[in-house]
Amino acid sequence: MRILVSYVFILALCYATTDDYKAKRAKILRDEELLSLGGNIQLTDKESAVNDCLMRHKFQEVNYYFNNPQYCNFSHNFFAYKDNIRHSKVYKIIKDMPKGAALHIHDMGILGADYIVNLTYSEVLYICFEEKDVKLKFSDKEPNEPCKSKWQLINEMRNSMNKTKFDAELRKYFTLYVNDPDIEYPTIKESWTTFMNYFRRVSKILTYRPIWEQYFYDVLLKLKMENVMYLEIRSVLPNLYELDGTEYETIVTAKTYKKIIQKFKKDYPDFIGAKLIYANSRRINRSQLDEYIRLARAIKKDMPDIFAGFDLVGQEDLGSPLIEFIPQLLNASKDLDYFFHAGETNWYGTLVDGNLIDAILLGAKRIGHGYAIIKHPLLIREVIQQDIALEVNVISNAVLSLVRDVRNHPLSTLFALGVPVVLSSDDPGAWEADLLSDDFYVAFVGVASRLSDLRLLKQLAINSLKYSALDSNSKRDALSKFNLRWNTFVENFDCSNY
Amino acid sequence: MRILVSYVFILALCYATTDDYKAKRAKILRDEELLSLGGNIQLTDKESAVNDCLMRHKFQEVNYYFNNPQYCNFSHNFFAYKDNIRHSKVYKIIKDMPKGAALHIHDMGILGADYIVNLTYSEVLYICFEEKDVKLKFSDKEPNEPCKSKWQLINEMRNSMNKTKFDAELRKYFTLYVNDPDIEYPTIKESWTTFMNYFRRVSKILTYRPIWEQYFYDVLLKLKMENVMYLEIRSVLPNLYELDGTEYETIVTAKTYKKIIQKFKKDYPDFIGAKLIYANSRRINRSQLDEYIRLARAIKKDMPDIFAGFDLVGQEDLGSPLIEFIPQLLNASKDLDYFFHAGETNWYGTLVDGNLIDAILLGAKRIGHGYAIIKHPLLIREVIQQDIALEVNVISNAVLSLVRDVRNHPLSTLFALGVPVVLSSDDPGAWEADLLSDDFYVAFVGVASRLSDLRLLKQLAINSLKYSALDSNSKRDALSKFNLRWNTFVENFDCSNY
Repeated sequence: MRILVSYVFILALCYATTDDYKAKRAKILRDEELLSLGGNIQLTDKESAVNDCLMRHKFQEVNYYFNNPQYCNFSHNFFAYKDNIRHSKVYKIIKDMPKGAALHIHDMGILGADYIVNLTYSEVLYICFEEKDVKLKFSDKEPNEPCKSKWQLINEMRNSMNKTKFDAELRKYFTLYVNDPDIEYPTIKESWTTFMNYFRRVSKILTYRPIWEQYFYDVLLKLKMENVMYLEIRSVLPNLYELDGTEYETIVTAKTYKKIIQKFKKDYPDFIGAKLIYANSRRINRSQLDEYIRLARAIKKDMPDIFAGFDLVGQEDLGSPLIEFIPQLLNASKDLDYFFHAGETNWYGTLVDGNLIDAILLGAKRIGHGYAIIKHPLLIREVIQQDIALEVNVISNAVLSLVRDVRNHPLSTLFALGVPVVLSSDDPGAWEADLLSDDFYVAFVGVASRLSDLRLLKQLAINSLKYSALDSNSKRDALSKFNLRWNTFVENFDCSNY
Repeated sequence: MRILVSYVFILALCYATTDDYKAKRAKILRDEELLSLGGNIQLTDKESAVNDCLMRHKFQEVNYYFNNPQYCNFSHNFFAYKDNIRHSKVYKIIKDMPKGAALHIHDMGILGADYIVNLTYSEVLYICFEEKDVKLKFSDKEPNEPCKSKWQLINEMRNSMNKTKFDAELRKYFTLYVNDPDIEYPTIKESWTTFMNYFRRVSKILTYRPIWEQYFYDVLLKLKMENVMYLEIRSVLPNLYELDGTEYETIVTAKTYKKIIQKFKKDYPDFIGAKLIYANSRRINRSQLDEYIRLARAIKKDMPDIFAGFDLVGQEDLGSPLIEFIPQLLNASKDLDYFFHAGETNWYGTLVDGNLIDAILLGAKRIGHGYAIIKHPLLIREVIQQDIALEVNVISNAVLSLVRDVRNHPLSTLFALGVPVVLSSDDPGAWEADLLSDDFYVAFVGVASRLSDLRLLKQLAINSLKYSALDSNSKRDALSKFNLRWNTFVENFDCSNY
């Protein structure tokens, strides 16, 4: 009885009036805001003006979708609303906004199908059509690799028919984009099969040494144009080749990166630079891993300035889990920094989401995707406490069949919890997305709270430098360069331009 | 430098050997297990034997889907794998297992299309076909309600044509099941429209007073057959009618519930019983809410033994948010227990997920769905601290377009965090699911960790009584009855039956 009386008394105290209720409610909202990513940033007056403009447009867009669920972009596959994004004013603001760095992006998936088709306008490129597939090879003579039909010079073939039609057909081999994704990609099996075919096809184009150099230069240029100032690129480090069939060792690919980074920084001194994460296939055994590690150490020794660290890649459900390699990886953790892909899966309680535990225990500096971490609250606590950033790629997860409606993407919760997160785009060229802006847009409008504002975007940009592999001096330098760029953006912002 | 040395020293201590690593890893898994729902239950030897059988089958099923992602049930819409569930041995064990109570289930959505079609075999049921729709009415003369074609006695019409075909066509009006759900229900708009049409159609059949009584008796019987021993049923309390057109007041519907509960308990004394949650439409204004509250109080006064509490229902995105009614609801919270639907939405940072805050602040005893709570970690903390159970209905959320791949359902995280959860089925008849077993199956195999075992199922069953609206004596009694049933199940369990 006394307990009951106290309870009623407390209740009376708490909820005596609607005003008390309102105060209590407001406190919850405030606490949620403070906990969330970027929620404790204080905006300057000028930033607040930008924010007012941004949020007016964001509310308009979200409210439209809220009130017209039949058109709601985010209920559908990304390919259904990809083109609509271009009309969004929020998108346009994001496009112009300095976004810091791209930290999770695979070299052969960056520039899209149009760029690849352009590269096929060459006098020394051979093509071989096979059933539902195509092989390509730069060569000064007919390639002696097997072809189920016939090797032909692509330009000769193109000139013998309707060029536009030829290019349109060719283009389909270099993209995951389809009109009916729900039918073409019912599960992860079909989307990943197409994805792997994509890589197999483009690799023979991109690894021709002169193209590789040009391509990577163009990647940096495209990033710069999208207001990105720094890159950490993942590479399997494929062997480059010449017209006469010469094939280079792996380390040459790394050296080529270094050369192009230096050239680009010379041409554009305001660009901060790029680093390499050596990330080869995870479908391997222990001796293959030894070889990878040996190579990583060799690159690090030779080019410590551009070498960021080590990772293993490929469809995680099919690859070897990290737990198979603990002694080797523990040993190499003494001199290699890890940026493991981990938990890029819908499964729960398997070796695949188990990779998250090992990535953390092995001391990963950042974790690629970490999609399944939402099901491991103790691991979320660990990444917060140890300040390990998750590299989240929302559009990739949507295209590659982890989630359809991005409003169900775990990033919502990671934002709410203030988990260290950086946004990236994984393989934007493979699905014809922007290098970073589309991912920022989808995360900001589709995944984040309707109430999340410029502070979230700013924090994401800052995080991309804060959690980079830059050494502490370079990081300080990069952050101050970013602040200058940010302030210029804010100073020059004119809402009527949008 | 000293910091660096200490760090290296600590690292050396922690990771000196692979054995240390393994111990650390095992501890994380153990801590995850202990935190998760049911994770600290100790199984008896006999329960362990049941568990071994259950988990052998679960691993087999999950491993099959893991290795054959192209067939993976859970990637698809529920309707694509609904029938496969019947072949699952895990499902068969769950079906036989005592499951406690169903706490979130709406009266007019419980028994499926076959049951409804059977009810139409009546000499006094009129039918009117309209464009893509059908109206029905029990009457001793031609109904005077508008009909765009012509009212006919259904049996006369059926007898004049191919009965099987007639019933098959008729059946489609009473189910959301379709062969191509991704096309029929691209968004929440289409699935909810069909859902609302379903209710409109069945209500004229079910609210014929003799049918209502029989239907509810059959609901209890079906629950009992599915090893459910207690029910809390949500009802809009529709007005019942007689053949001559007499319509009863709302309170008569409640009295009818009481009568049938008493009759059923007399027929089956081992059934614990049922209670009523008055849950009318949330698309209302303040004066309508006053009327609801008045009615709820009247029912509570008249039938305190069967009245559990108050709720508001309907597509939450379209209804009035709780915040519009705070003074009224605060006032009524003194004498009414709340079981609010809240956060049944994919939106984040809107008034709809905001309902979660108000449900908690208004002192809800349980929360219906709470789907969006995953995006509100502070609210998750509140429901844990205040021990407010979330009534989760996974299949409902899948059919009604919140999530396609149930592996993305937030329940995974709620399980991992040990949040108080009860499983229910919302409107299983509307999508032709079992009253509870299908939801248990999908939650256990598709949503929970692959490693979650009998302890999770047992905890869910216990929770359904623990968080019921039974008074403390009845609850103790119910739990002891449940334990008897559980022990009998365990004692008699024979793995070779599955």
